[in-house]
Amino acid sequence: MKKKGLTRRAMLSGTAISVIPAASLANSIKEGSPSWMITPGKTFSEYGVPSSQEENIKREIFQPYEEYAPGSGVAMTPLEKLEGIITPNGLHFERSHNGVPNINADQHELLIHGLVDKPLVFKMEDLLKYPMVTKTYFIECGGNSFYNSNAFPIAIDRTCGSIHGLISTSEWTGVSLKTVLNEAGIKKEALWLLAEGADAAAMSRSIPLEKALDDTLIALYQNGERIRPEQGYPMRLVVPGWEGNISIKWLRRIKVTKKPTYTKDETSKYSDLLVSGKTLQFTFPMEVKSVITQPTAGPKPLKKGPVHITGLAWSGLGNIKKVEISTDKGKTWNVAKIEGSNEPLSPVRFRYNWIWQGEECSIESRATDSKNNTQPQRTVWSVKFGLGHLYHNNSIQIWRITPNGKVFNEYDDLAQNEKWSEK
Amino acid sequence: MKKKGLTRRAMLSGTAISVIPAASLANSIKEGSPSWMITPGKTFSEYGVPSSQEENIKREIFQPYEEYAPGSGVAMTPLEKLEGIITPNGLHFERSHNGVPNINADQHELLIHGLVDKPLVFKMEDLLKYPMVTKTYFIECGGNSFYNSNAFPIAIDRTCGSIHGLISTSEWTGVSLKTVLNEAGIKKEALWLLAEGADAAAMSRSIPLEKALDDTLIALYQNGERIRPEQGYPMRLVVPGWEGNISIKWLRRIKVTKKPTYTKDETSKYSDLLVSGKTLQFTFPMEVKSVITQPTAGPKPLKKGPVHITGLAWSGLGNIKKVEISTDKGKTWNVAKIEGSNEPLSPVRFRYNWIWQGEECSIESRATDSKNNTQPQRTVWSVKFGLGHLYHNNSIQIWRITPNGKVFNEYDDLAQNEKWSEK
Repeated sequence: MKKKGLTRRAMLSGTAISVIPAASLANSIKEGSPSWMITPGKTFSEYGVPSSQEENIKREIFQPYEEYAPGSGVAMTPLEKLEGIITPNGLHFERSHNGVPNINADQHELLIHGLVDKPLVFKMEDLLKYPMVTKTYFIECGGNSFYNSNAFPIAIDRTCGSIHGLISTSEWTGVSLKTVLNEAGIKKEALWLLAEGADAAAMSRSIPLEKALDDTLIALYQNGERIRPEQGYPMRLVVPGWEGNISIKWLRRIKVTKKPTYTKDETSKYSDLLVSGKTLQFTFPMEVKSVITQPTAGPKPLKKGPVHITGLAWSGLGNIKKVEISTDKGKTWNVAKIEGSNEPLSPVRFRYNWIWQGEECSIESRATDSKNNTQPQRTVWSVKFGLGHLYHNNSIQIWRITPNGKVFNEYDDLAQNEKWSEK
Repeated sequence: MKKKGLTRRAMLSGTAISVIPAASLANSIKEGSPSWMITPGKTFSEYGVPSSQEENIKREIFQPYEEYAPGSGVAMTPLEKLEGIITPNGLHFERSHNGVPNINADQHELLIHGLVDKPLVFKMEDLLKYPMVTKTYFIECGGNSFYNSNAFPIAIDRTCGSIHGLISTSEWTGVSLKTVLNEAGIKKEALWLLAEGADAAAMSRSIPLEKALDDTLIALYQNGERIRPEQGYPMRLVVPGWEGNISIKWLRRIKVTKKPTYTKDETSKYSDLLVSGKTLQFTFPMEVKSVITQPTAGPKPLKKGPVHITGLAWSGLGNIKKVEISTDKGKTWNVAKIEGSNEPLSPVRFRYNWIWQGEECSIESRATDSKNNTQPQRTVWSVKFGLGHLYHNNSIQIWRITPNGKVFNEYDDLAQNEKWSEK
C-alpha cells in the first residue's frame, strides 16, 4: 500500500514515456468537462460495432486473379493493430476461392456418404441437438506469409498483418466429426474422407480418417456466436493445426473413402514443389511459428526508449514450449513471457520489454513447440523449396530497424529485390 | 479406423435425433446443386458482420426509467443463443447510466491525482506504449438476474438471457493499473481510489487500493480489437470478479484517497438493503454462480429424447471446482463436464447429456468455486435480503419442464405471482 518505488516493469516503461505533469493538467480540468460529458450519450444498440474512429482497423484484401477468378483471394487480419490472442470475428482472415455463398441455413444439408453403413443427411436443426465441444484453435492458411516466399514482389514496409495476416484464432464450438461419422457407421476399409464446401468453387480436400476421428469439429459457433458468412456459415470443418483450407467452409458433403480423392484443390494447389523437382502432397500440419506483431514495418517510426515487443506464437503439432527474442541480429536470445491457456493448437501471446537506444539493429522471434521443433531461419527454410514456393513458410520474420527508427522487412535482399527497389 | 460401434455420446444423441436416411438424400443430390453453388459468391469485406439470417440474435434492451433518465438502462446478452465462453463484442451486455459518450480518443485524457507524488495525465498514445497484459475475465452487473429478485414482474417464459444476460466474458488487454499508479507514486496514507467515467453521468466508484494494485487493468482492447464505444471506448477499468459497475467505462480520472468517496453511485445504488433494515455497502465480489443456458424458458418446447444441457459457471472469488446438475427437482446431483481454461475469474462452460422421457420435472445447475462456496437455492438467498432487493443474486436458476415440453422459470410462485398470472 506504500509508495515503494517503481517496479522493474514500470521503470522500463517510465523512463521515457512522456506523460503530462501536474501543472498543465490542472488547467485542462479547470477548463471544465469535455463536450461528451455535457449531454446524454447515444442510446442502447442491439448489436454493437467498433468506434468510427477505428475504421482503419480492417482486413487488407488481395485479389491477384480478379479478372478470371472472381471472389478468389484473401482478406488479411491486421495483426499489428490487434492485441491478445482471440481474433474478433469481423477481422478473422478469409481465403475464398469463388466468393462467399449466400446459403439458406434452413435449406442447407450436410451429406455423409461413401463407405458408411447408412448414408445420412443432417440439417442445421439436427446438428444443434448434438453434444457440443468448445476449443480455442488457430487457423492458418497454407499460403500464409507468401510475401516472404519470393512469389510476389516484397514491399519492405509492408506491415506484419499484410505479410502474415492469414492466421486468426477463435473459440470454436461445434459437434465432433467423430460423433456424426459414428452415426453413419464407418466401414472397415475406410481410411480417408473427402470434404466438400457449398461454394461455387466446391472447394474440396481429402482428409485422413484418423485426424477426422481425433479432434476435427463441425463448427457452428465462432467466439460464441454463429459462424460468419465468410467463415463458412452455417457450418464449417475445423481441422485444428492443419493448413487452413482443409477446414472446409460451407460444409455440404463428407464422403468416406479408401484413398485420397486427389481433388483439384490438392493437386493444382496446396502441394509443395521442392528444389529437387519433386512435389510433396498432403503436408497437413502448419509447423511451429511466431511473429512479432509490434513493432512492425510500416509508416510509424520507432522512438528511442522502452519498447514493448509483442507477438503471437503457435504450432500445428502441439503447444508452445518457449519463445525467444533477439534484438542483436540473432547473436543472443532472450526468453519472452507467454500468455494464454497454451493448450495444444491454441496460440500464445508473447511479450518482451526492451530498451532501444537508437542503434541500427534487427528484432526477431523464434518459437519452439512441445515436440521440440524450432522455427527455422528463412535461409534454412528456403533451401528446401524452390523459388516462388508459396506454402508452409514458417521461417523467422526479422524486422530491421534503422537508426532513424524506420522498421523494415529484412527480406529485401533476394531475387525480387531489383523489381521493387526501382520504385 | 473400424466401425467399432457407437460411442456412449453418439448413442445418447443418436437415439432420437431424426436425420434423413440414404434414399431421400440421394434425391436431393440428383436434383443438382443448390442455387448458391451456381454463381460466384459475394466478394471480400474489410470488416465482417453476422449473417442476415441471424438478425434475431441481439441484445434485449430494458430502459425502465427512460422518461426521466435517458440512456439509463441495460442491453442484455442473449445467453441462450450463444455457445462457448467468450461473448462476441457486438453482444457484450451493456449497463449505461446516461448513454454512450462519443469520446474523441485523441483528446481524451486520464488523470491520476490525489495522494500521489506527481499527478499525471495519460493520453491514449502514452498508454499504448506501456507493457500490456491479456486476461480472460467475466464482467457481471451487480444487478444481474434482477428479474428473479422480486423487484419486477416475473415472466415465466422469459429466456435465460432476458433474466441473466448481464454477464459477459471477454479477453481483455490493457495496462496494469498498478503500473500507472506507480508512475505517479502512491503516498503512504493512501488506502482507496475514486474512479470516474467520462460519460454524462460521470459514473464513479470507490475502489480499495489493494484491489487496484492486484489485478485491475486499464483495458484498451476487448477480444483483440479496441474496446467498443458501449464498453468504454477508448479505455475502461476492468476490476475482475467484482460487481460490473466498478469496472468504470470511459475512464477519465483516478483520485487516490484515504477513505471511500461515497459517491452517488455507491450510496443511492449498488448497496444492499438487508431484511434487518441495515444496508451493506462495498460488497464487491460477485459470488459463485451458474446458469443453464440451454434448454431455457421461451417459445421453443423441449422434445422427448436426448437433451444436451449446457450453461456457464463463474465466481468472483476464484475459479470453478465443480458444476452439478439435477434433473429431478434437486433430489440427486450429477457432476457436469466443464470446458475452458478455468483460470480464476474466467467462466467455464458446462455440459451434461440427459435423456428426457416426457416426465414433469425441473432442471437446475449448482456451481462450487475453488474457495468451496456453493451457489445457494433462491429460498436461502432471499432470507438474507428484503423483497425487491436487486443486487448480488447468485441463487440457483430452476427451469421447470411440463409434460408437453414447455420450459418455464420456476420462480412464479412468489409475491409478483398474481400480477403476471392475470396476463
